[in-house]
Amino acid sequence: MAKALVLEKKGQLSLRDIPVRRDLSPTDVLIGIRTVGVCGSDVHYYTHGKIGPFVVNEPMILGHEAAGVVLEVGSQVRHLKKGDRVCMEPGIPDLSSRSSKLGIYNVDPSVRFWATPPVHGCLTPEVVHPAAFTYRLPDHVSFAEGAMVEPFAIGVQAALRAGIRPGDVGAVMGAGPIGMMTALAALAGGCSKVYVADLAQPKLDVIGAYEGIETINVRQQAVSEALAGATGGWGADVVFECSGAAPAILALPSLARPGGTVVLVGMPVEPVPFDIVGMQAKELRIETVFRYANVYDRAIELIASGKVDLKPLISATIPFDESIAAFDRAVEARPTDVKIQIEMPA
Amino acid sequence: MAKALVLEKKGQLSLRDIPVRRDLSPTDVLIGIRTVGVCGSDVHYYTHGKIGPFVVNEPMILGHEAAGVVLEVGSQVRHLKKGDRVCMEPGIPDLSSRSSKLGIYNVDPSVRFWATPPVHGCLTPEVVHPAAFTYRLPDHVSFAEGAMVEPFAIGVQAALRAGIRPGDVGAVMGAGPIGMMTALAALAGGCSKVYVADLAQPKLDVIGAYEGIETINVRQQAVSEALAGATGGWGADVVFECSGAAPAILALPSLARPGGTVVLVGMPVEPVPFDIVGMQAKELRIETVFRYANVYDRAIELIASGKVDLKPLISATIPFDESIAAFDRAVEARPTDVKIQIEMPA
Amino acid sequence: MAKALVLEKKGQLSLRDIPVRRDLSPTDVLIGIRTVGVCGSDVHYYTHGKIGPFVVNEPMILGHEAAGVVLEVGSQVRHLKKGDRVCMEPGIPDLSSRSSKLGIYNVDPSVRFWATPPVHGCLTPEVVHPAAFTYRLPDHVSFAEGAMVEPFAIGVQAALRAGIRPGDVGAVMGAGPIGMMTALAALAGGCSKVYVADLAQPKLDVIGAYEGIETINVRQQAVSEALAGATGGWGADVVFECSGAAPAILALPSLARPGGTVVLVGMPVEPVPFDIVGMQAKELRIETVFRYANVYDRAIELIASGKVDLKPLISATIPFDESIAAFDRAVEARPTDVKIQIEMPA
Amino acid sequence: MAKALVLEKKGQLSLRDIPVRRDLSPTDVLIGIRTVGVCGSDVHYYTHGKIGPFVVNEPMILGHEAAGVVLEVGSQVRHLKKGDRVCMEPGIPDLSSRSSKLGIYNVDPSVRFWATPPVHGCLTPEVVHPAAFTYRLPDHVSFAEGAMVEPFAIGVQAALRAGIRPGDVGAVMGAGPIGMMTALAALAGGCSKVYVADLAQPKLDVIGAYEGIETINVRQQAVSEALAGATGGWGADVVFECSGAAPAILALPSLARPGGTVVLVGMPVEPVPFDIVGMQAKELRIETVFRYANVYDRAIELIASGKVDLKPLISATIPFDESIAAFDRAVEARPTDVKIQIEMPA
Repeated sequence: MAKALVLEKKGQLSLRDIPVRRDLSPTDVLIGIRTVGVCGSDVHYYTHGKIGPFVVNEPMILGHEAAGVVLEVGSQVRHLKKGDRVCMEPGIPDLSSRSSKLGIYNVDPSVRFWATPPVHGCLTPEVVHPAAFTYRLPDHVSFAEGAMVEPFAIGVQAALRAGIRPGDVGAVMGAGPIGMMTALAALAGGCSKVYVADLAQPKLDVIGAYEGIETINVRQQAVSEALAGATGGWGADVVFECSGAAPAILALPSLARPGGTVVLVGMPVEPVPFDIVGMQAKELRIETVFRYANVYDRAIELIASGKVDLKPLISATIPFDESIAAFDRAVEARPTDVKIQIEMPA
Repeated sequence: MAKALVLEKKGQLSLRDIPVRRDLSPTDVLIGIRTVGVCGSDVHYYTHGKIGPFVVNEPMILGHEAAGVVLEVGSQVRHLKKGDRVCMEPGIPDLSSRSSKLGIYNVDPSVRFWATPPVHGCLTPEVVHPAAFTYRLPDHVSFAEGAMVEPFAIGVQAALRAGIRPGDVGAVMGAGPIGMMTALAALAGGCSKVYVADLAQPKLDVIGAYEGIETINVRQQAVSEALAGATGGWGADVVFECSGAAPAILALPSLARPGGTVVLVGMPVEPVPFDIVGMQAKELRIETVFRYANVYDRAIELIASGKVDLKPLISATIPFDESIAAFDRAVEARPTDVKIQIEMPA
Repeated sequence: MAKALVLEKKGQLSLRDIPVRRDLSPTDVLIGIRTVGVCGSDVHYYTHGKIGPFVVNEPMILGHEAAGVVLEVGSQVRHLKKGDRVCMEPGIPDLSSRSSKLGIYNVDPSVRFWATPPVHGCLTPEVVHPAAFTYRLPDHVSFAEGAMVEPFAIGVQAALRAGIRPGDVGAVMGAGPIGMMTALAALAGGCSKVYVADLAQPKLDVIGAYEGIETINVRQQAVSEALAGATGGWGADVVFECSGAAPAILALPSLARPGGTVVLVGMPVEPVPFDIVGMQAKELRIETVFRYANVYDRAIELIASGKVDLKPLISATIPFDESIAAFDRAVEARPTDVKIQIEMPA
Repeated sequence: MAKALVLEKKGQLSLRDIPVRRDLSPTDVLIGIRTVGVCGSDVHYYTHGKIGPFVVNEPMILGHEAAGVVLEVGSQVRHLKKGDRVCMEPGIPDLSSRSSKLGIYNVDPSVRFWATPPVHGCLTPEVVHPAAFTYRLPDHVSFAEGAMVEPFAIGVQAALRAGIRPGDVGAVMGAGPIGMMTALAALAGGCSKVYVADLAQPKLDVIGAYEGIETINVRQQAVSEALAGATGGWGADVVFECSGAAPAILALPSLARPGGTVVLVGMPVEPVPFDIVGMQAKELRIETVFRYANVYDRAIELIASGKVDLKPLISATIPFDESIAAFDRAVEARPTDVKIQIEMPA
């Protein structure tokens, strides 16, 4: 039994004791959780009780963006030791599956992912996790930054799949948290400049404060026009679709250069109209993104080296005891809030 | 002035004299045309008078799938000589454009393409063409095969863009001429096996006669089911969409394996619903195809080496004098007709 | 205890009883061995007692190219059942290592590989093996062919790493067993034609009997000259170095086309002179190969589909009881012997 | 006739009048030269009279790293106009060659390259150049920076060929001008950190002053050890060999991670020992670099966006009238000199 933030059912959270797993296999570690970010998916389970086919049918601990301290290591664990500061990849695949053997364990259908029904999340003081998916944080990377690795990893995965080439001009449709993470990953990942487009000026102000990021307010200018102007009519080398919005998706061919790349990150609820002939006329390559695989190391490197500074995106830090309030603030979706984090008592 | 098959306007063909270009620049060759294939686009201009933004506003010579003999070479031409048997790439880009310098001259917006208004095609006894886009045929490759290089090049481009890896399982949606070319290119290009799906059994019978091709009659079995059965539930490594049909496009995520590839070859007239989330759940890569670039050499190699035999796809050979009848037969769209060719008097 | 072909020490083989592992973990299978190919490395351990850093310090069972029948499955095994005909990948990595998570488990330093000291091989009637590295053979693929999957997998890995594009012209330096496997994998994997070069005419005769393979006898013609002649002076798209011979390695830049690819498969004992400036002048890409990862499925597909027929490369089949004689014949290295196989009593 | 810096023969420079080409074809531009960098190859022609097969047999104007102002444009030039500030790609390929059509015009054997015998360079007030290889500089990029685009382009080409993935750890052997350019391109191109190794501390001090670059003095620590320490024993993701030194080349396998990449940039005069087996054991990919193709746009973008600041690498700026002195200083090879530039009278 341990205290945890439990989603009892749609719309009802409790901070209460609940039985949790504590057995440590030889390849596991026990981690004392320190910081947990609140993700849009956590909030969506709270407000809707489900995401696609995943339905909350029984009480579930929320949270999957976490950093902490190693309290105990299994007998076969070599690369971690008690006291190490770490962050954790929340999805645990079957390492012997065909997908995992190929290195794409993120698309292994048997992945068990924190806070995805029926798997518990990590908003509780201690969790058991496989050492293979637990990553050491350098001393100068804070727990708060460590808990940002998970959402940043999605941006890094998008940048990886894009196959960015040095000096590419990037464009990101949508300035939500994932759009921002993607823009920063694309910039650090080789783009000379990244243009971020959105309807909401406060969001554009947050991301536009980074050097190398230019913003486009869609209410004021067509994105295709802005990008054509910025590239002498050539178009962006890589366009990241992070809005999930049908009009943005339909316009994609007008944004990319001939032979360019589109990366589909945003997840529209239903199938949406797609301009295949427009894509073909420029012979675009289209990549899709599903979570991440093998990017935690590189995400941590980019943060640790100072190439990416995620601290400005942490909008609020709220104690574990007030985590229901933290979720209620997240539900509000204040336009200047990017990431709300919950801090466990040390 | 030369005799040519002229599309006067929508629905009206003549075989008549028309002024044609005969000046030979130092980098051009003059070619005596021998065989010309009838393409769906030729037929579409005949029946509809336009394709997308390209409208037949004045008389235009049809034909762009051609083989012939070099009659004369420009002063700077080195790799060709009088008497060489050749086939021609019908699109002429600006070689100094940004796209061409990148090697993707097919997406150079200034490409001039045979029988695409207002550019004349090659259904006339002699044409002038840049030597750089004229390719020698080995002695044992017939003119008829040489005139098949153009449509086969689209299949090869699709196979190239797919990034086929040795032993991949391929699937092709749609058994029209381009679907067939793509299936054969994919098989020669490294697939262990290629499954071709269509509604029309006569077409499936033609392509299914090739060793290594398996057919799926969509009226009898769901393609996703057939492919799952053939791959132990894993899915095809590469799926080529050659039908342009909305239901096939919507079903694509169910056909590919996790981490697989989809190649969009077919051209739906309008934007169609696209299952982005389904694509993401398997993290598929999606490639698009626009004509071809740098594939004529390899298409000819595949034919010349015997790896691909296109002769069974030549359904009829009709003399130039009867070319209007040839077009009228093509309009009929007999289910067993794949390619109709027109032969010039030698 | 089980009967096995044991390398007691350098130069001394016995067919005798030896203790073997029989415990079956939940993810293992027990396999009745049927056919085992004799590999050059087995022979080298026999004649030299070591390969590089791997030294035979205590008796070791030989053999790692095997096919057999599943006799028993562990409790968690899903994709195999008793009676399945199978072949086995002989290297067992740590699936949670950094390399394995990336999908390149072949370069995991902790791999345990059959018949590589101190790990026993499979020339014994029954072996325990992880189900994840055991692959089902289709009914029409014989055990003899199943035991060819291992050496063929090296060729497939080479073809994969090459990134062959449809219609590429391939060249293979060296017509040893691996050179032959590579040539066949490259041909099936998308090459229009593959040129194989060697000093030994009998070997060239064996591989030259395949359609699509051309041979070059190095005693009669320089390879660079032969390839230039075959490609109009352009060079091969992909050159596979399978000889390990210094002169062949030095000549590599003269064989490939501008922008072409070289794959280093052969293993020269010592560092050899490499013409870096020659490689740069054509901006070649050079790939290296170490065993294989994730290719067994595709190797089996290529054999099962009939695209690759390895049966002509099986030079002799010898009963288990005579396996010492089999090894002594392998030591002889008859020029027409490609693969010698040992058959277990059914 | 125009004044120019002429290499009369090995060891003898004059600043004198010489006949130069002034005819402007419809696709050319006439450029007023402003700044020209002195390259190691210019210096080598001066001191040795040849580089490899290229021998100075008659007087030749030196210089190929240049920026200037458009004075006149040919009748078909669209993307440039009089008064544009520009820099120029010094190699002019045959755009209709097989290599150029593939997008790899740098390996077209017919390339004519400034200041490579018998082609004149650009150390003269005005030059005619194809518009297709002339690139506009943004207003805030100086001529001095514009003249750095050429050497930086080599670094960008190396970074491109490397296929850097976001967050990669890079390593550069050799801190000469090209090593420095490569390190900066790799860092801007996606590396989280780049380690630069050399024997000369003054050079390391120059490049180590950049944030994100760490230096290794080879006299003090083995590079393999330093990299192992920095990466937890894993190795660098990408190793750029920019020294051309045999010991560095032999050590390459010890520097890269399993599955990593080596890029050969440095040009050893003779074939050097290469540890093929060491490369294979980690299944490394090896890329080579020859000048550059299609990178000027991206090199300019990286400078213009502020991601790369090359100004600290300009060690001296010397007037055209003193250009012989400039070359004599370059011959000295002062350890703190990176790039010496020559300025034309405005």
